[in-house]
Amino acid sequence: MNIVYKSEPERGHKWAALLAEMAPDASFRLWPDIGDAEAVEYLVAWVPPANIMQQFPNLKVLFSVGAGADQFDYATLPPELPVVRMIEPGLTSGMVEYVTFAVLGLHRDMPRYLQQQREGIWQAHSVHTAASRRVGVMGLGTLGEAVLKPLVALGFDCGGWSRTPRDLPGVRCWAGNDQLGEFLARTDILICLLPLTASTEGMLNADLFRQLPAGAALVQAGRGPQLNHQDLVSALDSQQLSAAVIDVTAPEPLPAEHAFWQHPAIWLTPHIASQTQPESAVQALLENIRRFERGESMIGVVDRDKGY
Amino acid sequence: MNIVYKSEPERGHKWAALLAEMAPDASFRLWPDIGDAEAVEYLVAWVPPANIMQQFPNLKVLFSVGAGADQFDYATLPPELPVVRMIEPGLTSGMVEYVTFAVLGLHRDMPRYLQQQREGIWQAHSVHTAASRRVGVMGLGTLGEAVLKPLVALGFDCGGWSRTPRDLPGVRCWAGNDQLGEFLARTDILICLLPLTASTEGMLNADLFRQLPAGAALVQAGRGPQLNHQDLVSALDSQQLSAAVIDVTAPEPLPAEHAFWQHPAIWLTPHIASQTQPESAVQALLENIRRFERGESMIGVVDRDKGY
Repeated sequence: MNIVYKSEPERGHKWAALLAEMAPDASFRLWPDIGDAEAVEYLVAWVPPANIMQQFPNLKVLFSVGAGADQFDYATLPPELPVVRMIEPGLTSGMVEYVTFAVLGLHRDMPRYLQQQREGIWQAHSVHTAASRRVGVMGLGTLGEAVLKPLVALGFDCGGWSRTPRDLPGVRCWAGNDQLGEFLARTDILICLLPLTASTEGMLNADLFRQLPAGAALVQAGRGPQLNHQDLVSALDSQQLSAAVIDVTAPEPLPAEHAFWQHPAIWLTPHIASQTQPESAVQALLENIRRFERGESMIGVVDRDKGY
Repeated sequence: MNIVYKSEPERGHKWAALLAEMAPDASFRLWPDIGDAEAVEYLVAWVPPANIMQQFPNLKVLFSVGAGADQFDYATLPPELPVVRMIEPGLTSGMVEYVTFAVLGLHRDMPRYLQQQREGIWQAHSVHTAASRRVGVMGLGTLGEAVLKPLVALGFDCGGWSRTPRDLPGVRCWAGNDQLGEFLARTDILICLLPLTASTEGMLNADLFRQLPAGAALVQAGRGPQLNHQDLVSALDSQQLSAAVIDVTAPEPLPAEHAFWQHPAIWLTPHIASQTQPESAVQALLENIRRFERGESMIGVVDRDKGY
């Protein structure tokens, strides 16, 4: 198998070392050192080169290095070229850790306590039980389903919303635009793990925040362009929302004067919720290539009509 | 049954309402409105009155309103008076939530990311897997055992240390002073849930921090007097420790000029990790009184030799 990698070089070198061990027969080259372009069968990339098929006339599959595949311009990709998102256990564990941390922090008023710390205030606030805290996950794919497991185990009142109906143990599920309002009305802590599509772009806005119970909180670990920044600041300042944990923004990084940096009710992290782990990512890549070569279906193939 | 409550009045009123419902025959009075002192059988208190047996000559049991019973001056209590700590599921869940939050936050570098936010820095750092992170709990009572469950489920490499040997699923256990050094040498995130006794007072000090791997982190959710504040600040400033999440201190509240308030590597919360939940606490109290009245052993009776 002949693979070209085009993303962060540091990660590329780790992948190269792992591939040399796990698949010694494979050719794995780091962009721009691509070797014989006509021999390249698989491209692993965050942003592929322009004119991808002229560059690699015999390309068989385009793999994203990350969980998303919204960075690709599908108009420039041949319709028959399979595009595959990264689904691997390291990426999933990272998101589980981040969301569990964020939900527990919001549940236990931690943004308020850390703000009190900076102000030198020692004051306890009343505690709510997990059972009385209604957590809701938007987007019930691999990551959404995984983050719900520890939240259910911790005793939260868990709900989920997705485009198409799902059935998850211990989770009350809603689906489609018709049921979005009902889902939002019962959600104290909202977690966004939606893919970026035409219909989710800008979706986290004033209209949506207004449908949440007063004082609700947000965890944004989906994609940057889904969140209207000004609407979030307004919702926090009017106390419609109490706090937000934000991992993704548009643009990234945020400009120096952006309101999120110093907002006392926002915890901002630099898109670190979930990162592919080299070892499990390379295993997942090899497994998908082997499936493809045996004529089996790969895991994480993008449905271009849905956009994810 | 005749009960007097002496602690925060706000909580007392909640307990009174719950007791009226769950045990309508019981007499439950809030200090200082104690009624007929000679009729009082059970005292629920954080700090009992001086000359407790002169005040309540027929007292049968002293219950602590909290998980600890180190606030009592045992020299002033008759040796035959049973003293009972509060063990109830609400108190346990609170601690599980707090410790899970703190460990995930330390594991994922969150004190550093929130400090970066304040400084306007957008920079990701490398991620470690949970399996490569060695978490260690000191104190393997009801709370220690409970907090380990989600940490094991999240995939951390879990260890525990206690005075007497324990055997817990998925947790490597060490016991006694002889094995303390070995436990500390393998612990990246140390969680203190020890009771306050003569031997644990001041135990979290420079000598102990030195035995942890360089860059280790601390979660202090035990008792205030266990931690040497100056030693913690020195260990953080020399980077022997990377960060600390502190819920209990001595004194509480901390004085205004104390170094913990503004230290960038410390998250300070005002003794809120675990609070008794009125409903489950009243159930636990009633269950213990019924056990006592049937001549059965109560749950949480303090062994005065061990001090907990």
